[in-house]
Amino acid sequence: MPEEDEANPISEIRRAIIAQDGSALLAKAEDVHYADLAGLYEDLDDEERDFLFKTIGPELATDVVAELPYSLIEDSLGHFKPAQLRFLLGNLSDDDRVDIFQVVSEEARVRFFSLLGTRDKELTKSLLKYEEDTAGGRMTTQVGRITADMTVKQALTILRRDREDAETLARIFVVDVQGRLVGKVRLRDLAFNTWDTPIQDIMDTVDEFILATEDQEDAARLLSRYDLVVLPVVDEFHHLLGVITYDDALEIMQEESTEDMEKLGGIGGEQTELTYLNTSVATHYRRRAAWLVCLAFVSIASGYVMFSFGDVLQKAFVLSLFLPMVVASGGNAGGQAATMVIRALALGEIAAGTALRIAWKEARTGLFLGLTLGVSIAAFISLILPHFHPPAPDSFSFLQLSLAVACAITLQVLSATVLGALLPITARAIKLDPAVVSAPSLASIVDVSGMLIYFGTAAAILRL
Amino acid sequence: MPEEDEANPISEIRRAIIAQDGSALLAKAEDVHYADLAGLYEDLDDEERDFLFKTIGPELATDVVAELPYSLIEDSLGHFKPAQLRFLLGNLSDDDRVDIFQVVSEEARVRFFSLLGTRDKELTKSLLKYEEDTAGGRMTTQVGRITADMTVKQALTILRRDREDAETLARIFVVDVQGRLVGKVRLRDLAFNTWDTPIQDIMDTVDEFILATEDQEDAARLLSRYDLVVLPVVDEFHHLLGVITYDDALEIMQEESTEDMEKLGGIGGEQTELTYLNTSVATHYRRRAAWLVCLAFVSIASGYVMFSFGDVLQKAFVLSLFLPMVVASGGNAGGQAATMVIRALALGEIAAGTALRIAWKEARTGLFLGLTLGVSIAAFISLILPHFHPPAPDSFSFLQLSLAVACAITLQVLSATVLGALLPITARAIKLDPAVVSAPSLASIVDVSGMLIYFGTAAAILRL
Repeated sequence: MPEEDEANPISEIRRAIIAQDGSALLAKAEDVHYADLAGLYEDLDDEERDFLFKTIGPELATDVVAELPYSLIEDSLGHFKPAQLRFLLGNLSDDDRVDIFQVVSEEARVRFFSLLGTRDKELTKSLLKYEEDTAGGRMTTQVGRITADMTVKQALTILRRDREDAETLARIFVVDVQGRLVGKVRLRDLAFNTWDTPIQDIMDTVDEFILATEDQEDAARLLSRYDLVVLPVVDEFHHLLGVITYDDALEIMQEESTEDMEKLGGIGGEQTELTYLNTSVATHYRRRAAWLVCLAFVSIASGYVMFSFGDVLQKAFVLSLFLPMVVASGGNAGGQAATMVIRALALGEIAAGTALRIAWKEARTGLFLGLTLGVSIAAFISLILPHFHPPAPDSFSFLQLSLAVACAITLQVLSATVLGALLPITARAIKLDPAVVSAPSLASIVDVSGMLIYFGTAAAILRL
Repeated sequence: MPEEDEANPISEIRRAIIAQDGSALLAKAEDVHYADLAGLYEDLDDEERDFLFKTIGPELATDVVAELPYSLIEDSLGHFKPAQLRFLLGNLSDDDRVDIFQVVSEEARVRFFSLLGTRDKELTKSLLKYEEDTAGGRMTTQVGRITADMTVKQALTILRRDREDAETLARIFVVDVQGRLVGKVRLRDLAFNTWDTPIQDIMDTVDEFILATEDQEDAARLLSRYDLVVLPVVDEFHHLLGVITYDDALEIMQEESTEDMEKLGGIGGEQTELTYLNTSVATHYRRRAAWLVCLAFVSIASGYVMFSFGDVLQKAFVLSLFLPMVVASGGNAGGQAATMVIRALALGEIAAGTALRIAWKEARTGLFLGLTLGVSIAAFISLILPHFHPPAPDSFSFLQLSLAVACAITLQVLSATVLGALLPITARAIKLDPAVVSAPSLASIVDVSGMLIYFGTAAAILRL
């Protein structure tokens, strides 16, 4: 971690802030990447944050603000006077500005909006139409646009004007007079062709694009699948509205992976965007308490099943030796199947209508896993246990016991595996989130079914 | 999923293959993205694959082969005659070629190597030096290189020669006569400056780069943190060896997320790169069986603890009602803490030496979570349970029972939370994989400690 290295510029900036040495701070801050400044800002206290932003001023702070966790943005803008704030808001790229408008309070939104220039006001209003997690909500409108009737020279003139604004010039899009997307050229094609070449002759067709109202995850998947630098975003009339860039795709993918992992781990609520250590205990508590309490009370159901089978357990208390094993194996096997399917869903590998193929694959996998466990545990009980458990079991032989436990664990693993695979698919089919539904409900169902299967099988085979 | 749509070009190609209609196949295949052809190839049987590759020929097949899952690559190259194979291997980009050499059998590696041209032989040999998962193993050497003493015009002439080979021209690197990295320019700076401008005047310093021997994950994190399109890879003398591009970062991040998720879900072995449905039952079985069997046998330890406390349980069988709850809550709370810490480690949020701060944060979070559960369950036992469980418990009051269960669950959740957070950090500190160590060992330890805490607390408080 950069923060740990004493000789590094971020540590020097930190020391300059503590020493209230504005000129040293400014000199260093100009050489540092804004992402590192944003990381530093997060670790500072209020007074230090104020000193940092007052010293570097609104121009340098623009990119830093855009990089901050959403929950810190509104406060961070409070360090500036209205005139500075007007400059900073105008200096933001349009997608960052919209993001900020989407996350600040209603009161701040109105106040910030009044500071915008006329063009930015209109643009911001039109971008705020799109939900935060759609392609339209994520796109930037700052993209190179030319028309097919231009020459290379005319195109370069237009683009030169926009060069510092455009998020990327790796792909330049060709639109018709109505602004509809008709093609694309690469900057290298402009740079390496003679100035009188018509754009018409060097433009390519656009095969990949996305509707502004579609999910940002779908946009990220397209960028990733086709290795695109930029993906054009269009409306239903095929007007070019903006682009989503490769770095958005990276961010979206990472957010989604974190989200799925957290949901699988039984963690609820929104991601904080703050680093782990900067997240308060109260927030950590809030994100975990609900599922924990809910799951705890649900597991009284398993307790009730165990309690009901009290007579079986008391007649053959040796059964307690393998109770945790059978129950836990179901949870583990179901969790494995759910993880595979949830990840496959997230990567877009599983098409609608393949539920039966998945169930069949998991049924076979689960059966072999269950049999492996069953045979192993049967061998253990009939061959090894007798040496360690001298008092012969109550009213049955070790062989009978091994049969009962083996049958129970095979059934439990088979059923949990199929259930673990089908729960996420069912959730997706009824438009629920696969990860959030599967992990906790799976654990609860499989614990109860494990108790039932174990005691039911044992009672039947051992005639208890 | 595209495959489901009857009117789409991939379905048409599939039909052309089934109908053995080579000309229809070829006409369609040229319009389709290679990533889609690779997806289709995966779903075909051997004969269909052969027809597809024989029809489209080595040129079109080059990109498709590079996109295939590693396990299919060697077979896929078997469709071509030596002369075609020589063309295809030469046509691959150098990083894809090295990837292929890294994954095929020893026999194939020797045979393929003999088909390479002299320059490709040398390049491949020098790239094969780097481990597959290092920056050097992932980079491409196809990058725009110029020197500082050139003019814009000279630079453009050099780059025009390389234009189709270079992976990206978004960033062009400036090297000295020894090939050491001294700066960078953007293509737009070349395109928009006059032809006689010296490169010296428009070049920027390079702040971000990576050593070839560093982990590819670190490269991906740099690309993501600083929103880079390309990251230069250098040797210890700062010679420019190649670049890693944004699409590599996306792929690396996705592989790592999948890996972490699978490990957390108790799935072992290498990712197959095949889609879920194309992975055989045997492979699914192999990746899950080891952990499942291992965890099952470890959980006999919990069974043994339960068996040992047989007299306590028999004296107060009502305890069985809350046994699964106490044990499972520990597993859930520990899993939540481990998930948070493992993800924070993966995103590079946690620095070395912060173990104590993490433990302190989790201790407080765990205490509050444990108390929440303890108070809830105590209220349930003392206020609600008496109405549903008419026979008064054996030798103690509902109030005493509620106190015992509440203490046990608070202790269990607190200890499991701290343990869940510390296990991944400890694993990282001793250079083990946090995800692979934490989930399974956590489950085993927490189950046993839960049994011990539950019966120990109950025996002490209820004087059993």
